[in-house]
Amino acid sequence: MTQTISINDSGRLQLTPLEIPSRLLLGPGPSNAHPAVLQAMNTSPVGHLDPAFLALMDEIQSLLRYVWQTENPLTIAVSGTGTAAMEATIANAVEPGDVVLIGVAGYFGNRLVDMAGRYGADVRTITKPWGQVFNLDELQTALKTHRPTILALVHAETSTGARQPLEGVADLCDEFGTLLLVDSVTSLGGVPLFLDAWGVDLAYSCSQKGLGCPPGASPFTMSPRAVEKLQQRQTKVANWYLDMLLLGKYWGAERTYHHTAPINLYYALREALRLLAEEGLANSWQRHQKNVEYLWEGLESLGLSMHVEQEYRLPTLTTVCIPTGVDGKAIARQLLNEYNIEIGGGLGELAGLVWRVGLMGFNSRKESVDQLLAALRQVLPK
Amino acid sequence: MTQTISINDSGRLQLTPLEIPSRLLLGPGPSNAHPAVLQAMNTSPVGHLDPAFLALMDEIQSLLRYVWQTENPLTIAVSGTGTAAMEATIANAVEPGDVVLIGVAGYFGNRLVDMAGRYGADVRTITKPWGQVFNLDELQTALKTHRPTILALVHAETSTGARQPLEGVADLCDEFGTLLLVDSVTSLGGVPLFLDAWGVDLAYSCSQKGLGCPPGASPFTMSPRAVEKLQQRQTKVANWYLDMLLLGKYWGAERTYHHTAPINLYYALREALRLLAEEGLANSWQRHQKNVEYLWEGLESLGLSMHVEQEYRLPTLTTVCIPTGVDGKAIARQLLNEYNIEIGGGLGELAGLVWRVGLMGFNSRKESVDQLLAALRQVLPK
Repeated sequence: MTQTISINDSGRLQLTPLEIPSRLLLGPGPSNAHPAVLQAMNTSPVGHLDPAFLALMDEIQSLLRYVWQTENPLTIAVSGTGTAAMEATIANAVEPGDVVLIGVAGYFGNRLVDMAGRYGADVRTITKPWGQVFNLDELQTALKTHRPTILALVHAETSTGARQPLEGVADLCDEFGTLLLVDSVTSLGGVPLFLDAWGVDLAYSCSQKGLGCPPGASPFTMSPRAVEKLQQRQTKVANWYLDMLLLGKYWGAERTYHHTAPINLYYALREALRLLAEEGLANSWQRHQKNVEYLWEGLESLGLSMHVEQEYRLPTLTTVCIPTGVDGKAIARQLLNEYNIEIGGGLGELAGLVWRVGLMGFNSRKESVDQLLAALRQVLPK
Repeated sequence: MTQTISINDSGRLQLTPLEIPSRLLLGPGPSNAHPAVLQAMNTSPVGHLDPAFLALMDEIQSLLRYVWQTENPLTIAVSGTGTAAMEATIANAVEPGDVVLIGVAGYFGNRLVDMAGRYGADVRTITKPWGQVFNLDELQTALKTHRPTILALVHAETSTGARQPLEGVADLCDEFGTLLLVDSVTSLGGVPLFLDAWGVDLAYSCSQKGLGCPPGASPFTMSPRAVEKLQQRQTKVANWYLDMLLLGKYWGAERTYHHTAPINLYYALREALRLLAEEGLANSWQRHQKNVEYLWEGLESLGLSMHVEQEYRLPTLTTVCIPTGVDGKAIARQLLNEYNIEIGGGLGELAGLVWRVGLMGFNSRKESVDQLLAALRQVLPK
């Protein structure tokens, strides 16, 4: 080998093997994964067209349909984190000029606005203060005003901890032929969700919250009605990596190569979904609800209050008001450094006003709550 | 919890824990990962803003600069597989109407054409039969004809096994102010590559080939000159997930939240890069070259010939001509089912004509070659 250029060693760090602190992750995600799920990642990869892998993809599809309560054939895991799955719904559903109405009552509603704009949507918004939700009357009025092609709502707003009720929304959409797009990043697996019964056409989620898996492979689904719109597009999907016309052929019967899947993450996702199916959806939802109520009681006994009205609080993520005079960032830093517990701070309108406490998937356990409450008792000003 | 809809259990598969066959992956990728790299994935995730994780991101950046031989500040891992990193170069470099000249001599050149078109590029191509490469005269003529904003070349064409020489190309580009974009998916870590010395402005790769890591976190880099073009864009990057103006703030000093990184894949990538730095780039390149020459000799002794002229053959991926009368698919299937060895078939123009044999990263070892040759001796018609 001729090699006339000399190698620059300036970036060649001499490192010791990986050492990572062991944290209890009670922020907005990622959460800790079940040990069996982590162990599955330590399995040698096979090829993305290996019959053993294709069989595993089928299992993932079936189990995702179960956890989402849908029969959509096009139900897959996208090879990226939740944001990639969010972008997949927009990229495939939106054609330039489509009116997209977005409910914005938090950070992730705003992200949808930014994203849809990049795909040429004529974006309209309906807004609420962060932490509140839309009622059917408000949605109906907005639908009448904007007559959108797509209505996008955030079922579980990770920035506020509010649960947007979805029952009845599809009936309103039907009047205008509007597709219903739903963010279920912080609800899937932990919060009751019935995609088909509620008439949701497009949904996305992530792996590292209610499913208790590490991040990187993200649930995506679209209804036959949404697929029909996709097939009738006049323009190519403006995103190659997330184009469902191509991806559908890899996940479907054709098995046409599209891209190399993140094999080991799919191992993990399959294990996480298997454990969830073993527990059962109803049991998982009840577990999340029970543990979060235990958390709320404990926080209240410490004199803390929640930001969201109880009826609309998520069982997976709670926003806790930071008491006046308390340095929220300092408390979170102390929990991390002294107790190895991660909680989140507020975003956007809620920055500096709340902490975000997640109890999701494997971490929705009484022990997690006890550990957090004990630490808070130590670090909160008396 | 009120719940009036009953749960549909039709997708609720009852599965046993994951069992995956142990394969020797000698196809076009993924390759097997080093056991220490796999083990790193079995580490509980921390948060994507955890100080321990931010330090690990810095290590990844430094080590990526080393393996690419670049000092580009914007050198990161994208949260997706190689195709996502490919799309990141296009999405960030191309503005609608930009003339993009693409060298097409294989499947991945064509993929760049499709992708650049989706971002509004005025795409021009220069073509060669699959397995050949472009010389400087041909590139100069094409540059003069098209005067492109961007010239995209595939350094290592995974579909053909050909290595496109890059020395001298940047000098030609300079005349027209053309940015040089390079696909190094199948070269990074295994094939000599000097981004800065060769004047490359944008490059992408993957984790599961020369780096010996599972797929899912993919190297991306852009030169200060390419960043300048990005900063002067008149339109938003038409891809939120891959927008380097946003991602640069997460990987840079600001640490602004963008999306949840695939934490455990970054653990693995850090370990893979650490091992590569320990071995040293020159040693890794020499190892790949030595083992592939041993493979070529062995294949020739079995009466097989290579598709690409020796001077331009990649040390990481070899296309082997399927002898007349031999059923290439049946041989590959037999290797997989009876010997647990994966090799690849041909794509596009080379479908049915070649096998693709990869010796990449951890798998570039004499033992891998011996194992394959012994199996081929059994399954090839006498």
